[in-house]
This record gives sequence, C-alpha cells and structure tokens, in this order.
Amino acid sequence: MVGTDGRSEVRVPSIANWKLYDSAAEGLREYWYPVAQSAAIGRRPTHVKLCGQDIVLVRDSRLFALEDRCPHRCVPFSGGGTPAVAKRDFAGHLTCRYHGWVFELESGRLAAALTDGPDSPIVGKVHVRTYPVQERCGMVWLWPGEGEPSVPVEADIPEELLAADARVYSRSSPRRGNWRYATENGFDESHAKYLHRDSIWAWFRKIPSFNTMTLFIEPDGKWLSRGKSDIHFQQDYPGLGRWPHYHRLKVMKHPSSMKSSATSVRLPGILRVPYPGWSIFEWYVPVDARTHQYVQVNARWTNSLAARLRWWAYYTFLIRNVQHRFLNNQDAWMIGIMPDSHPERFFRPDASITAWRRLVETTARDFHGIVEATAAMAN
Amino acid sequence: MVGTDGRSEVRVPSIANWKLYDSAAEGLREYWYPVAQSAAIGRRPTHVKLCGQDIVLVRDSRLFALEDRCPHRCVPFSGGGTPAVAKRDFAGHLTCRYHGWVFELESGRLAAALTDGPDSPIVGKVHVRTYPVQERCGMVWLWPGEGEPSVPVEADIPEELLAADARVYSRSSPRRGNWRYATENGFDESHAKYLHRDSIWAWFRKIPSFNTMTLFIEPDGKWLSRGKSDIHFQQDYPGLGRWPHYHRLKVMKHPSSMKSSATSVRLPGILRVPYPGWSIFEWYVPVDARTHQYVQVNARWTNSLAARLRWWAYYTFLIRNVQHRFLNNQDAWMIGIMPDSHPERFFRPDASITAWRRLVETTARDFHGIVEATAAMAN
Amino acid sequence: MVGTDGRSEVRVPSIANWKLYDSAAEGLREYWYPVAQSAAIGRRPTHVKLCGQDIVLVRDSRLFALEDRCPHRCVPFSGGGTPAVAKRDFAGHLTCRYHGWVFELESGRLAAALTDGPDSPIVGKVHVRTYPVQERCGMVWLWPGEGEPSVPVEADIPEELLAADARVYSRSSPRRGNWRYATENGFDESHAKYLHRDSIWAWFRKIPSFNTMTLFIEPDGKWLSRGKSDIHFQQDYPGLGRWPHYHRLKVMKHPSSMKSSATSVRLPGILRVPYPGWSIFEWYVPVDARTHQYVQVNARWTNSLAARLRWWAYYTFLIRNVQHRFLNNQDAWMIGIMPDSHPERFFRPDASITAWRRLVETTARDFHGIVEATAAMAN
Repeated sequence: MVGTDGRSEVRVPSIANWKLYDSAAEGLREYWYPVAQSAAIGRRPTHVKLCGQDIVLVRDSRLFALEDRCPHRCVPFSGGGTPAVAKRDFAGHLTCRYHGWVFELESGRLAAALTDGPDSPIVGKVHVRTYPVQERCGMVWLWPGEGEPSVPVEADIPEELLAADARVYSRSSPRRGNWRYATENGFDESHAKYLHRDSIWAWFRKIPSFNTMTLFIEPDGKWLSRGKSDIHFQQDYPGLGRWPHYHRLKVMKHPSSMKSSATSVRLPGILRVPYPGWSIFEWYVPVDARTHQYVQVNARWTNSLAARLRWWAYYTFLIRNVQHRFLNNQDAWMIGIMPDSHPERFFRPDASITAWRRLVETTARDFHGIVEATAAMAN
Repeated sequence: MVGTDGRSEVRVPSIANWKLYDSAAEGLREYWYPVAQSAAIGRRPTHVKLCGQDIVLVRDSRLFALEDRCPHRCVPFSGGGTPAVAKRDFAGHLTCRYHGWVFELESGRLAAALTDGPDSPIVGKVHVRTYPVQERCGMVWLWPGEGEPSVPVEADIPEELLAADARVYSRSSPRRGNWRYATENGFDESHAKYLHRDSIWAWFRKIPSFNTMTLFIEPDGKWLSRGKSDIHFQQDYPGLGRWPHYHRLKVMKHPSSMKSSATSVRLPGILRVPYPGWSIFEWYVPVDARTHQYVQVNARWTNSLAARLRWWAYYTFLIRNVQHRFLNNQDAWMIGIMPDSHPERFFRPDASITAWRRLVETTARDFHGIVEATAAMAN
Repeated sequence: MVGTDGRSEVRVPSIANWKLYDSAAEGLREYWYPVAQSAAIGRRPTHVKLCGQDIVLVRDSRLFALEDRCPHRCVPFSGGGTPAVAKRDFAGHLTCRYHGWVFELESGRLAAALTDGPDSPIVGKVHVRTYPVQERCGMVWLWPGEGEPSVPVEADIPEELLAADARVYSRSSPRRGNWRYATENGFDESHAKYLHRDSIWAWFRKIPSFNTMTLFIEPDGKWLSRGKSDIHFQQDYPGLGRWPHYHRLKVMKHPSSMKSSATSVRLPGILRVPYPGWSIFEWYVPVDARTHQYVQVNARWTNSLAARLRWWAYYTFLIRNVQHRFLNNQDAWMIGIMPDSHPERFFRPDASITAWRRLVETTARDFHGIVEATAAMAN
C-alpha cells in the first residue's frame, strides 16, 4: 500500500534518493512500448528511437526490428535522416547499401557479403542485434531490453484494450521533455484544477478548486489510482478573496468533479483516465533523456454498429479536436518548458507524484540491474 | 591617479592578472542597470536576463521584478519563449499557470496554493526571490546583487541625466559579445581614428591620425576620462607614405579632433561622449558571458520649447539614423567577431583600456566578494 | 611492398593501433593542399580553413596567405562570416579595420600602427604567421605545416597534371565527414560494386559482383594501386540465389570490369581513377575533424584543338552532370552519415583500406613529429 491520506504536507526526499528513478532518464528497458502505428510501417526501413537506442523497423513476411547500424562501417540502415540506406534484394533479408552486406531479418545474421563473393569467409560471423517486436491494437510494440522478453506483450498492455469489443483510436506525437516529467504531469493531482481551467474542454464545466485525495493500488496490483472525496468548489482564500469565479454557462459536470472518476498510472509510464462510456490511455514513451513520444489511445467497448458509429463521430469531431489540441497541448507546453534538471518543492497534492515514484522504485522490472549498475559506477 | 602619459609602450599583464575583471564575465552584480524601457513593461510578465539571471518584470500598483522560476516545478513565469505562464488572478499577486501557486509581488511570498485549498500548509513557507527595481529617465533599473542595494539608484545614474532640464532619448538593442569587450571598445582611444573613418558621420569631418592621451579621474571620483593633446592629422609613415588622404569636402571639425571633448567611462560599464550641446551615454549591460544589451541615452539640457523641438528633430533625423546605424553598428560589428577568449597584444593607445581595467580592479563594489570566491575556487 | 593477396580474411587492428593515422583527425600538415580556385581569389580577403587553421587569402603583386587573426584584439581579417575586416590602404600590405594595424603581406611583419603615429614603438615587434602558397593547374596550393615547406609544390601534385598537354577541369565542394573516411571510401575496393550499381553511370554497364584484388606500390614509390583479376559477374549465393540480375540494356563495359583500370591512392589523400582516354583525380582536403573539401580534377592529355573541344563537351555535358551529380554524390552520402567515431568490422576487400592506412603510417612526412606528440600527451 503506497497511498497517503493526501492531507499531510509532503516532505519529498531529493531526487537523488530515488535511485532507480533517477537513473532511468532514458526509460525503463524491461517493458514493451508502443513505437509506431502498424499502418505506417511497410517495406521501407523506418527509424525509431527508444530508450536512447536507434532501431530500424521493416515489414517483410512479418514485422522486424533491428539495430539501426551496419556493423561494417556503421552507416544507419534507415539513412539517419537521409533516404533509406538498406535495400531489399532478397526476401527475408536486408542489404546495406554501402557494400552489399546482407542480413537475415529473423536472426540478424550476416547471410552474404555480396561484393566478396559467395565464399566470403565473414558470412555467419557477424550479427546485427534484433529486437522483439509485436503488433497489437493497431500499433507496433517493441522490447528495448537485453535478451528475450521476460513477459509477453499482453502483460504490458492494459487488458481493457485487448478485449474483443474494444474500439480503439490512437494518435502519437513527439514532445520535448523527459518521459518522467510527462508521466508525473499526467498523474499530477492538482494541475488539472488550474492549468486546464481555461481549456475549451472546461468552458461549460465547473472545475473544482481542490479535494481530498486517496491513493491506492488496484486489485490487479499494477495500477496506482487516486480517488477523490470532499470535492470543493468556490472558496475564500485568506488575504485574496473568493476563487474561482464560475460564469453561469458552466452547467456541466467536469470529470474531475466526479468521485467516480479515478485517474490511474502504471509502469512503465501509462496513464488511464476514465470518462463516462470511454477511456483515454496515454503512454509517455522514452525517446532519449530530453524527448518522449506521446501516444494517446482512446477506447470504447461495444459491438453495436450504431454505438461504433457514434464513437467514431465523437472521437473524430470532439475528442481529437478539443481534447487533444487544447487540453493535451497545455500539458505538452508545461512539460516542454521544465528545465532539464532543477530543484523541486512539493506540496500536498504532489503525494500523487511521490506515490508514483515509490511505485517505480519498488516494483520496476529492471530494478536490481539498474541500481547495481549505478552503484558500480559510483564506486 | 590611474592615468599614464600614454606615450610609453604598454606591457599589459595577461588577463589572468586582473583577478576581479577576469572573474566578472557575467558582470558586476552590485550595481543598478537599465534593463528595459518603462513604456514597454505592462501587466504582461516580461522576461529580461541580467548578469546571467532570468528575471520577470511585471507592472501592478508599481513595477515588480521576480526570479523567473516557480519554485514548485521550475517553469518560468515568463514562459521562456512561449506565451506567459504567469496569470494575474489577484491584484498585487502573480499566479503560476501550472498549479495555481499565488505569489505576492511585493515580498515574493507564497500567498496561496489554490489547488490545495485555503488551509494549504505550504502557504508562507516558500518565497520567490524579488529584485529591487526603480524607474528613472524613462527606463527600468534593476539591482542584480544579493540582498538590499548598498546605494540608491541615483548613485548609478550620471547626475546630468537626473537634472530637471535633461531631455533624454534612449534606445536599446541586444548585441553579441561580452560586456567587457563592448566597454573597452567604447573607451578605446584609437579605434575611432580608424574604424569609424569611413562612417557617414565622418564624411565631412577630418579625423586625426593620432594624438597624445592623458588619462585622469574626474573630481567626482567616478569617471575615468581621457584627454587629448598634440593632435596630428596627415603624417608620413616610414616605408608606407602619407596617411590619411583627406578629400576637400572634409571641412568640419570632428569631435575627436577637439581638445575639449573628453570621453569618459565609469563603473559598471557606462560611457560618456560629449558633443557640442548634447551628450551620448552608453551602457553595456551584461546579459550573460556572450551577450550584452547596448543601451544608448542621448541628452540635451534645456527648458526652452524651441530648443526642445530642435533637439527632437536633431535626434530623430540625424542621431538616430546616422550615429546609431552607421557609427555604433561598426562597433557592434567588431565586438561581435572578437572570439570568446583570446590572447591580446596591446599598443600605446591601449593605455585607455588598461586604465579602465585598473579602475574596475581597485574600485568595484563587490571586489572583495568576487575575488574571495575566485580564490576559494582555486584552492 | 604493402600489398596483400586480398583473399584472406583481414583482421584489422583497432584504429587505436594506427598511431599516426588515429592522431591525424585534422589532416597531415606537411603537405601541399589545393584550397581554392585561382580565379576565385582577388583583392578581397577570402577565408579558407585547412587542417583546423583559419587562413586568409589575398591577391596583391602575387597571392598571399596569412593567419586569419589580427594579433592585437584577435578579430579575423576575413571578417569571419561578416564583410571583410582587412582593408588595402597600402600596396603589399593589409590593414586591420579595427585600429589600423598595417601588416606586410610578404613577411607578416607589423609595418605601422597608424593610430599610434609614425614613431609607434610596436612597429616591427609583432608578426602574423604567413603560409607558403603557390598556384598550379588553376588552383591555389597551401602548405599548412610549420616553417618552410620541405618539398616544392610539384612534389605533391601528380606529375600527369603538370604535363604541358594536360587539359584540366576542376570543381570543389564542402562535404560532411572526416577526410580519412572520404579517402578510404575513394580507395575502397568493394563499395563501387554495390553502392554505385544503380547510378546513372551504370545504367548501361555491367558491374561485376566481385574480383580478386592485388595491391602494389607503383614504381614512383608514391601511389598505392589495386589491380583486379578473376572478375566475376552473376553468382549463386548460398541460401539467397543468383545475384546480380542484369537487364538486357547493360551492354557497355564498366571500368570496374576492366583489368586495365587500376585505382590508386597516395598521400596526403589523393585518388586517381583512370578512364579510357582521361582520368579523375580527387583530393579529400581536411578542413577540420568533421568536414573536408572534395576537390575533383578531370584531365585529358592532348594538344589537338579538335580533341580539346571534344574533351570540353564531354566534361561539360557528361562528366559534370552524370559523374559528379550521381556517382560522387552517392559517396558523399555515405561519408556524411558515418558517425564521428565508431567501431568497425572489416572484410576481405577492406585490405585496400588497411593497405592505405599502412602506407600513411609508414611513409607520412610528419610521422615522427605527430607520433612523438601523441606519445608525449599519453605520458
């Protein structure tokens, strides 16, 4: 149980005390991450960066992921911003454009060095690293850790999204800022009550000023949730006066004013926000220490054709425009202007952030490896 | 008396021998600096950078200056190049857009954390640094030093500019290059005699080739001035021939050819050049180690309406176009292409520069603090 | 004899074992390099960068090259990207625009400090470094080493280009990537057989798949050449099938399919590729550790007017467009995307590269100086 009552002032240990979390600037590696839309990856080698690693995706008989670097002279297969360097001379293989080294997609093994002839003695002696890759929910999932995945991809996708009746729309965009700031912003108890107050989403909704927060782990042991009680609206602040001022058009209930709506977070950095009848899931995928990929998945559960049509229209016209453009862009704005490293001074609602950090510190898969590596470096 | 006769070759100690001066790459902090035009600062939080410090200016009942960083999650109040992050929910206060922390402008004290309710225990326990700020001569003056200013703002503004009959026009522009190169260029004895020779300002004026220089401290103990005698025009240079060649239209006297005109410099980096009937003052305000703000103040002293009109026209049509665009831009050009650090080889006229460095070394307000800090770092 | 039979797998020592080569990231200094077209250098001071050194070229009675930095305040004579700072007040001299220091082009000696008068005691006590410079084949050749050149410029220009009947066209362009990658790419045995396979140059030519390589030093002791034998075309590759597939329009002989055509390389980084009736010479001139200047010289030997006209047309319409734009740009592409430093894994055809490295290691003019300096730094 990592929860707190949310009403005692939080004295946060400096970030140096979060050994694992502090060392994970480029992300936690022993997890599956969504790195691309399935429909976007075809026969053309495509570059993605995940946890600081350059990776090339290419579709053949199935989807493959390889280290984006020919071991001969180190040119990137993807071209590194120039046209793709890898060619597809043989099915199931990738050829480096520079000298004709042919790699088997399945194993990463050098299958031929064309310009050294069929008897080239280097064949079979060189390998390119391959990455485990899967496709689910219309997206490509990649395992950036060393060796074989310790869990199947389903272990890292919220099971709601894998349900047969899930109707899913997803979008993705690159964003400035470390993935941890983005995750913390997502689960942050208080920012929605101020930052998003003037978003279009809130024009007709009364956003509360504050509430009591309860933090708890869901029965599945994965999600950390924060519940609300004692929801307050207009208040008198000593020396300042009443706040906020609601105009008369604010007649709708805002999700953050509903006790039933509990926002949740889980490793390696996934947010879940339930709305009436549908939910948003957000991934903050680590690209490198200064950049992350924001992946938004919107889901509704239904098999009825009429409901699916309404959901399509609701997503296409309302969510995609209003939610993403205005509300999520406010988050991206703040995450993008937070300095790379800085002191921090927490207040009571930040108990949500410290609970999240504690969750990472105590349950992350690669906990021991990273902390031992950190300790070794310190000695 | 820091003057020299200006006619013995100067052997300059390397810049490492100027302990204080060498350590002051980001400026001398215990001084008032002009950082903005008063008219440009309104209710919208505006960023300025001074001596390496990010500061936000905002006008309420009066003008205020605060550290441009919310202590909670370190977002800049000014937005750091994005739209302003600070809002103005309550008179006399600034609210951080991210989580609704409200700071009192006068004291920098956290007056409320809106999203933690009226009883938030953090209220009063957090402060943002405030900076002393004043308005004089139509400009905003800021004290970047620690603690209370040791002198009133008037101590750092030339008293001529504070006179009741002073008619002042000022302009300002950001420039590449360290503030010390800019100040040295301003007081530099010889550059005007070559660099500015082909400026529009000199089309009809005979610029001398060289003169004897006398350096002396003015009776007020603040200004270091350089006087001229033995002003030479065309000369024979061994092996090269006669120089310069004056065309017949050069019939006017150039200020640098007049004994009466003594250019002066004072701390923390202010230049004064008297012209017949008016004067130019220049500030080289340290932004960071590589950039400064060039502030030019043109003044004439009169209460007569006719004289004021003539001065307005003279400034608007002549000074602003000819002086600023051509002559001052030549200075900016040189200062901007000087490398960040470099060896230097001085000649006789550079006695003006070494006298200026000695003035800083021996009279700067924060002399002891900086040198002690430097010594501590060296040990 | 540095050749190998080219058919045993090459185990390359890591680049750290090439002491001189590894230390020569900014180039070998004791050589003459082509740095500009003669026609491009006039009275206006022009900047070039060679082996990490900023140099200014200027034409007076003859061509001169000086260090691009006034020793007084270190402004670059060339202006460093701004208009030229140096002026030409006196024949045979260059005047620094800032304070009127006049330097003799021939010796670099300070001939006058105009603004300090004819009796300035600094005259003759300051020198700017001058560089040996020559003009041959329509280009400017510069010696970036310390002191007097140990060889005449002719020693570093292939003698074919100095022949009386040589008709030479040259072009030059700045390129990303270290000069060593560019030289290695030029002499690389195998890349032409894969990278250039789809260039326009190869549309109607059958490029072989591989051959046996013989490496040998030419009788002049300067050029390292690689000869071909056992030239193979379509082959069966185990597990992959036949490669390459030639379409029926490929009816011409490709140079790389001709035994007679031996590509050669020599210090400090010059490539020679003979074609029937003409040759290409390429220089990979070190600018700094990350950039080089690609200089291409195309030559034919004839005194006949008709042959010269045909050569002009052949160069202008065919070589310049097809060869340079397509084939050479493929090389520039690969060199530009190779990372600054990286591991490498060689295969048999890379014997050409290791032979070249060995040639540098054992015969470079400044071998002892650089290796001693490297050893001294390591101790």
